[in-house]
Amino acid sequence: MMVLITYDVNTQTLEGQKRLRNIAKQCENYGQRVQNSVFECLLDPAQFALLRHKLESIMDKEKDSLRYYFLGANWKNRVEHVGAKKTYDPEGVIVI
Amino acid sequence: MMVLITYDVNTQTLEGQKRLRNIAKQCENYGQRVQNSVFECLLDPAQFALLRHKLESIMDKEKDSLRYYFLGANWKNRVEHVGAKKTYDPEGVIVI
Repeated sequence: MMVLITYDVNTQTLEGQKRLRNIAKQCENYGQRVQNSVFECLLDPAQFALLRHKLESIMDKEKDSLRYYFLGANWKNRVEHVGAKKTYDPEGVIVI
Repeated sequence: MMVLITYDVNTQTLEGQKRLRNIAKQCENYGQRVQNSVFECLLDPAQFALLRHKLESIMDKEKDSLRYYFLGANWKNRVEHVGAKKTYDPEGVIVI
């Protein structure tokens, strides 16, 4: 399943920047960063359980916000991109 | 239908901050800001056409990125929130 993960943190602090880097690093093991704090991750339920455990250990729950959107199997029909930065296909080959 | 709108802009520039403010203002006419650059908007197809026209007029397509995620009718089952900031129900009453 495709899980969209959005992360809200104040990146004007060094600690916030560090948490965002760590969140991105974990998400990129399963998918890709599509915007500065938006990640698309292809996961099975066990992977999702593991990833969310890692993310929720990294985040500061008093300061940061994390949202999961479960886009399901037909996620490709649910996404549209406009403007800068390439879109990508996490199930396919990334062309650079 | 529920459309999730994510917007990527460099808010370290005044122009970027201004564009984000304008994007948020438009989105808040139809839904709510759930994170700094993440908006959930309840729209019918005509409203979506109008909103995307406005947003794409505001954004700088060379610099900013805008993504639309169509969450469909069962969107409430597709969303989960962790950490700071309240979630909300755009179809219900906002309790402050």
